[in-house]
Amino acid sequence: EFRKFMDDQPFLLQLAEWSLRGMAQVIMANNPISGGLILVALVMESPWQALVGTLGLLVSTLSAIVIGMDSVEVSMGLHGLNGMLVSLLIGIFSSAGDWYWWLLLPVCIAAATCTFVSGGLQPVLDLWDLPVSVFPFNTVIVLYLSCTGSANPYFPHHVPVPPGGTQGNSTQLNASQVLQGVLLGVGQIYACGELWPSVLILVAVIIFSPLLCTHAILGSGAGMLAGLSVASQHSFLYSGLCGFNGALGCMAIGGLYFSLSWKTHFLSIASALLSSYGDLALRNLLGTVGLPACSWAATLTVSLTLLLTARRNLSTYRIPTSQIT
Amino acid sequence: EFRKFMDDQPFLLQLAEWSLRGMAQVIMANNPISGGLILVALVMESPWQALVGTLGLLVSTLSAIVIGMDSVEVSMGLHGLNGMLVSLLIGIFSSAGDWYWWLLLPVCIAAATCTFVSGGLQPVLDLWDLPVSVFPFNTVIVLYLSCTGSANPYFPHHVPVPPGGTQGNSTQLNASQVLQGVLLGVGQIYACGELWPSVLILVAVIIFSPLLCTHAILGSGAGMLAGLSVASQHSFLYSGLCGFNGALGCMAIGGLYFSLSWKTHFLSIASALLSSYGDLALRNLLGTVGLPACSWAATLTVSLTLLLTARRNLSTYRIPTSQIT
Amino acid sequence: EFRKFMDDQPFLLQLAEWSLRGMAQVIMANNPISGGLILVALVMESPWQALVGTLGLLVSTLSAIVIGMDSVEVSMGLHGLNGMLVSLLIGIFSSAGDWYWWLLLPVCIAAATCTFVSGGLQPVLDLWDLPVSVFPFNTVIVLYLSCTGSANPYFPHHVPVPPGGTQGNSTQLNASQVLQGVLLGVGQIYACGELWPSVLILVAVIIFSPLLCTHAILGSGAGMLAGLSVASQHSFLYSGLCGFNGALGCMAIGGLYFSLSWKTHFLSIASALLSSYGDLALRNLLGTVGLPACSWAATLTVSLTLLLTARRNLSTYRIPTSQIT
Repeated sequence: EFRKFMDDQPFLLQLAEWSLRGMAQVIMANNPISGGLILVALVMESPWQALVGTLGLLVSTLSAIVIGMDSVEVSMGLHGLNGMLVSLLIGIFSSAGDWYWWLLLPVCIAAATCTFVSGGLQPVLDLWDLPVSVFPFNTVIVLYLSCTGSANPYFPHHVPVPPGGTQGNSTQLNASQVLQGVLLGVGQIYACGELWPSVLILVAVIIFSPLLCTHAILGSGAGMLAGLSVASQHSFLYSGLCGFNGALGCMAIGGLYFSLSWKTHFLSIASALLSSYGDLALRNLLGTVGLPACSWAATLTVSLTLLLTARRNLSTYRIPTSQIT
Repeated sequence: EFRKFMDDQPFLLQLAEWSLRGMAQVIMANNPISGGLILVALVMESPWQALVGTLGLLVSTLSAIVIGMDSVEVSMGLHGLNGMLVSLLIGIFSSAGDWYWWLLLPVCIAAATCTFVSGGLQPVLDLWDLPVSVFPFNTVIVLYLSCTGSANPYFPHHVPVPPGGTQGNSTQLNASQVLQGVLLGVGQIYACGELWPSVLILVAVIIFSPLLCTHAILGSGAGMLAGLSVASQHSFLYSGLCGFNGALGCMAIGGLYFSLSWKTHFLSIASALLSSYGDLALRNLLGTVGLPACSWAATLTVSLTLLLTARRNLSTYRIPTSQIT
Repeated sequence: EFRKFMDDQPFLLQLAEWSLRGMAQVIMANNPISGGLILVALVMESPWQALVGTLGLLVSTLSAIVIGMDSVEVSMGLHGLNGMLVSLLIGIFSSAGDWYWWLLLPVCIAAATCTFVSGGLQPVLDLWDLPVSVFPFNTVIVLYLSCTGSANPYFPHHVPVPPGGTQGNSTQLNASQVLQGVLLGVGQIYACGELWPSVLILVAVIIFSPLLCTHAILGSGAGMLAGLSVASQHSFLYSGLCGFNGALGCMAIGGLYFSLSWKTHFLSIASALLSSYGDLALRNLLGTVGLPACSWAATLTVSLTLLLTARRNLSTYRIPTSQIT
């Protein structure tokens, strides 16, 4: 009935609803209220980042409409999340400072390219009933950063530091900072590195589904364990960067693509660990050529898990991609 | 009727016709006269390069016949273009100088490997009605250059310089050299860096289809714009290296795989821009491990565009891969 | 009848048989006696390596049973070989010395991950009737080494040296060491670098099939030729490292996936050469980021060859993946 009510509204209001849903889809919640809370969290963290992210979201949603993508998918916000993520990351990596307006140019191009890549990947991944997920975002951000390079005179950016650096962890591990790192791991999905915005994002997830929220924290904790087990640098643990791939991997399996049972719960923890270790590996590997690992590890692990369960007894718990709300 | 006439000729004459077609297929023209003009352009540029390229073309066409590839594809020259491109690039990157006869050994192996890789990729790409295109060339040249390494005592080669280098562009941009760079971009498809051979190659394209030629220059211009927008080094712009991926991406969409309309025309320009930015990204990325980006960007972008349009309204303009002449 | 006899035995005895088969499956022999001989060879080389390899084999076989993989495949040992290879390589690359018990932790995780990856790759590769082969091993070992990095305080490891180094080969080539290198090439499939264990492994192959053994030595010789032709370092040739990809590529085509004929025999030699050159290329390429090439080259070449022959006249010699014993 809400969908029917919205269909009668003017286009701009509909677009606003789709965009808020798209904002929440990053964390697998299909709910405009969650999206609104996340927007507040982004503004709290940095108004410039919120602006950049919203612009990317709008550009990729609009280009999906122009190209003629499936209108149900558009109204669920599925064509906005990649554009939003790529814009947020372009903003975070830019070393030109906030309110550098020229940055909006690559943001628009990258967001439109995400929709382009989405449309191209869909027929390939459909063969195995896999979702396009955030493959376009991960591809486009790597290409953008390679294209501009770190010393570009127009669009300079920071070079990510791989977590397995050789400088010693001389100080003792701080337990409260580790716990905070687990919470920040959920915020880092939106490139948020501060506590209160991360808490607000968690609240946005609870509103949509407490189960999803539990898996987010579990996954972020699994990522922390993985980081500790290979002696990552403390700054990497405290910032939450080691947790967000685990959180994404755990949420997708435990709260989105499968109905809950003990088996799928264990599978979600396995997926979280694999995502986290994979992320550490890709960070070190891509770090040698000056690139970030983004959420490649979680995206690949979730795709692998969906493929793994395709023909086995776990497939009874699988929710088909087309029925995910 | 020309096909029927050729069927009665002796094998060597047939092979010559197939080879001339193969020479023109690199630039998406299926016409032996265009192929002859291109051969003249190559000889003008460097007789040694023309010899190396022709040898690679013959070896890969003959190995396609031995393996038992589809005879219609062979007679269209589709199994020669990868071998020719890989040989031209082996010749260009070799730092042993012209007339270093030992180089013909890897040229033959690489050209035969191209046919091998083509045959392997075909059943994979056929699932989505994608052409094999120049994937084999791009794969084999990267493997050849990795295999020998820059300091090899038998087969030494130059290391490509990524375009995003840090040395400043101290001098002013020269407008006439930029315009010349747009023309050279078409020649660089055959690794030609001089003006008159490039013009001759353009004439070869006009003979086959003026539409294709327009898109070649448009695409090369889009590549130049992309290079300017990220402050590439001037030598990279002037040499035409920034234009050839754009030209390929634009020609494939605007003149080969789609019938012309305003929509496909815009799509071809989008494809040219995406190919060019992708090429800049891959050049910087592969440059960190000492490898060139060749035409990976254009090949991937064209494949993505074909996938993108597969199920949408643009698919009415699509010409099926099997009907492309 | 042997299969029926085994079905009545207690589980532990069955598991032992499956594991011995798994040990031999690495070298494409499905025979518990060959597996036993290989275990003896590994103990001769290093008891610690034999322990690590056996643990990985057991963990990945057991996790395949838990996940619910096809029981026929499990009883053929096909779900043990990836776990065994990844464990052997983790052991070889570890620089913490023998009997470093903490290493068993990553060995168990990596072996279980191999089964996970196998299950995920199967539905993808099944589309083209390709075997999963050792793709999981190659993926997981690269991720493990990237994840820990060379200077990890808990799990340090050696960094592989690419074969195309610039230091000159000042000494003369030693013919007897080259011949020994060909034999060692077969042993290097199990990361064995000593003569007698390699001979024992060859004996294990002869017992299963003399044809397979012939192709193993032919392939290793082809790899040696490839290494000589690009002036690899002598230590690389003498250690047999240049031969094992050729041996794997030659055995798979000449003795496993095709029935014998002159055509398939030539195809197996082409596959051996391509595997060897591909391995040299990938070693230099992955070496620039500090990673080994493992058996990527042979695995990719064999997959390509299977794809190449799929629809051509050679397909009459192809033995379907499901009927390989």
